Amino acid sequence: MDYKIASEKLHRKLQGKISTELKAEINSKEDLAIVYSPWVAEPCNLIHADKSKAYDYTLKWNTIAVISDGSAVLGLWNIGPEAALPVMEGKCALFKKFAWLNAFPIVLDTQDTEEIIKTVKHLAPTFGGINLEDISAPRCFEIEERLKAELDIPVFHDDQHGTAIVVLAGLINSLKITGKKKEDIKVIINGVWAAGVAITKLLLLYWVKDIVVVDSAWVIHKGRSNLNPTKEMLTNVTNTACLLDPSSSECITGGLEEAVKWRDIFIGVSAPWVLTENMIRSMNTDPIIYGLANPIPEIMPELAYSAWAKIVATWRSDYPNQINNVLVFPGIFRGALDSRVSKITDEMKLQAAEALADLVENPSPEKIIPEAFDEGVMEAIARSIK
Amino acid sequence: MDYKIASEKLHRKLQGKISTELKAEINSKEDLAIVYSPWVAEPCNLIHADKSKAYDYTLKWNTIAVISDGSAVLGLWNIGPEAALPVMEGKCALFKKFAWLNAFPIVLDTQDTEEIIKTVKHLAPTFGGINLEDISAPRCFEIEERLKAELDIPVFHDDQHGTAIVVLAGLINSLKITGKKKEDIKVIINGVWAAGVAITKLLLLYWVKDIVVVDSAWVIHKGRSNLNPTKEMLTNVTNTACLLDPSSSECITGGLEEAVKWRDIFIGVSAPWVLTENMIRSMNTDPIIYGLANPIPEIMPELAYSAWAKIVATWRSDYPNQINNVLVFPGIFRGALDSRVSKITDEMKLQAAEALADLVENPSPEKIIPEAFDEGVMEAIARSIK
Repeated sequence: MDYKIASEKLHRKLQGKISTELKAEINSKEDLAIVYSPWVAEPCNLIHADKSKAYDYTLKWNTIAVISDGSAVLGLWNIGPEAALPVMEGKCALFKKFAWLNAFPIVLDTQDTEEIIKTVKHLAPTFGGINLEDISAPRCFEIEERLKAELDIPVFHDDQHGTAIVVLAGLINSLKITGKKKEDIKVIINGVWAAGVAITKLLLLYWVKDIVVVDSAWVIHKGRSNLNPTKEMLTNVTNTACLLDPSSSECITGGLEEAVKWRDIFIGVSAPWVLTENMIRSMNTDPIIYGLANPIPEIMPELAYSAWAKIVATWRSDYPNQINNVLVFPGIFRGALDSRVSKITDEMKLQAAEALADLVENPSPEKIIPEAFDEGVMEAIARSIK
Repeated sequence: MDYKIASEKLHRKLQGKISTELKAEINSKEDLAIVYSPWVAEPCNLIHADKSKAYDYTLKWNTIAVISDGSAVLGLWNIGPEAALPVMEGKCALFKKFAWLNAFPIVLDTQDTEEIIKTVKHLAPTFGGINLEDISAPRCFEIEERLKAELDIPVFHDDQHGTAIVVLAGLINSLKITGKKKEDIKVIINGVWAAGVAITKLLLLYWVKDIVVVDSAWVIHKGRSNLNPTKEMLTNVTNTACLLDPSSSECITGGLEEAVKWRDIFIGVSAPWVLTENMIRSMNTDPIIYGLANPIPEIMPELAYSAWAKIVATWRSDYPNQINNVLVFPGIFRGALDSRVSKITDEMKLQAAEALADLVENPSPEKIIPEAFDEGVMEAIARSIK
């Protein structure tokens, strides 16, 4: 099958992967008078007296917005709102398929941080939650943080936290397989966009102690100049030997080639082909390789295995160990809506990763995480959000 | 049936009168790869190359937003966004029921004119049209005008124009019944909120020449002080004798009681009980009375008929001649989306009113307009939007 042609045809045939449908019957003047004017005034008055009743009398309890400005779409980058719409519709379709919730796509005709924050706040009352999607770093960090602080419904930037949760789940099982300990492992994360930063933060919360982060230019370390605030923050929590003594041999500087040496785990959220077989050979024994660039990974699995990688995960569905956010985001919002939590906390993200890892009964190098259609995945994640 | 209790029960049972549903099948990894990543990139790329392709590959072609700030909801006035949500959901349900289009409610947590304009512009790319709803006057006028000018999709404030089109349709048939001529009739419009202003404008476009408008205090006429810009505008096009000579006996001043004398048609979009039998008796023969206050009209039909009203229309479903916007708004947007017009013009509104009037084969005092469930209404309106 030529997937490209199949995709064009299907999208043209469907003209929309979701629709809005009637739940109320409207077949008579009496029906009209109840679902609309004048007697719709009854639930209006009840909600006016107590805003929280919107969860009892409207779709709010089971409805989220999937919001993007189209600035960092998949591997397509800044393609703008209209072109991002098929992705957001697809996401909404997955929310319905896997978690039975109503999701509606809203693509925004602005990429200004303040305007996005204001717009999302203004349109929030309809929704029980906000899924931010494909908004470029570093704006995505401020947008999510501000909205979390200022709204009373859960806000979740899936590109960050969905990815981080699946990566951590895979890591938990990879450690079981290799016998390595989270306190001892040395991790290198290549790529400092939304996902790279979120993975770093979540691994630190999981008490992984030794992480080095590399951006497109160089290793991030205390004292490097011209870092944006996000990267500056990372100099305080990663590559920490440089904090104590920049001249020590433990303080890592240089490029990817230098930084990957003697590491146990490589996590790439960067670009195709940047990791070589020689680099893998320079890592510790039983190296664990995540190549999450999309659709072509940092190194193809065949090559990684030929360089003695122990476990390889990619973002692709045609290899084992697909790091697929769809394992996580449906359950995150199903749980958040069911438990009516106002925030997705760090603790919940850790619990979700543990729950996802636990679903694999006998972890092996070819199966470190469940697959999208495995039973019970959504429910397990949902139970961890409370 | 106690409608109030029935409404509370139904809304609590449904928890949402619409839902989002899947149109795409998602049952395998291959489906996932096509409706979502990586192959959703194909329609994304095509839309990125030509924005108008969003109509071919996404839900945009058949989807509108129903947007309100909750500032002027039905007879409930300023109840805010959450409490307005049942009304907006109801409207979306009617759009689906009568015109098979996707409508999604967006209630806004701001009542600032500039913020509303910016927010609607920001969220517009998802939608093929914008239905503004229950936004208070005079802000609604500027919000609609600015959005019409600045967006390339149709924007329609139903409280204004939907009402005005149904009123004009009824008037066209009322003139047939009474033999009065549009050039000669004397009209009084009581109430200068959204609907009153829009009715005035549409009747003027229809070449009704003699209109007097009354607000809660007084007749509007040139020279009256402290008028807002909307009312000031009305002094130039209504009660025009005052423009030429404020001292002439043709220039009408005073209150409703003075203004209604010798008028042919009373159109109330104001408040319950403000029109008395004596006032109707002071009108020209065969008076036509629209009492559109909701849910209790300006005068109850029984009383109006006892004072020799020839034709009475209200907003209520339990009397003949219900002036119901549902006759109009589904067809307006069905036609606008099908013909992909970028604006709903004055000419289209006049054509819609004529089309609606023409659907009544033998107009009589008890049947000046069709009823909501009459066949062919939506289609007739839709054909007039092109």
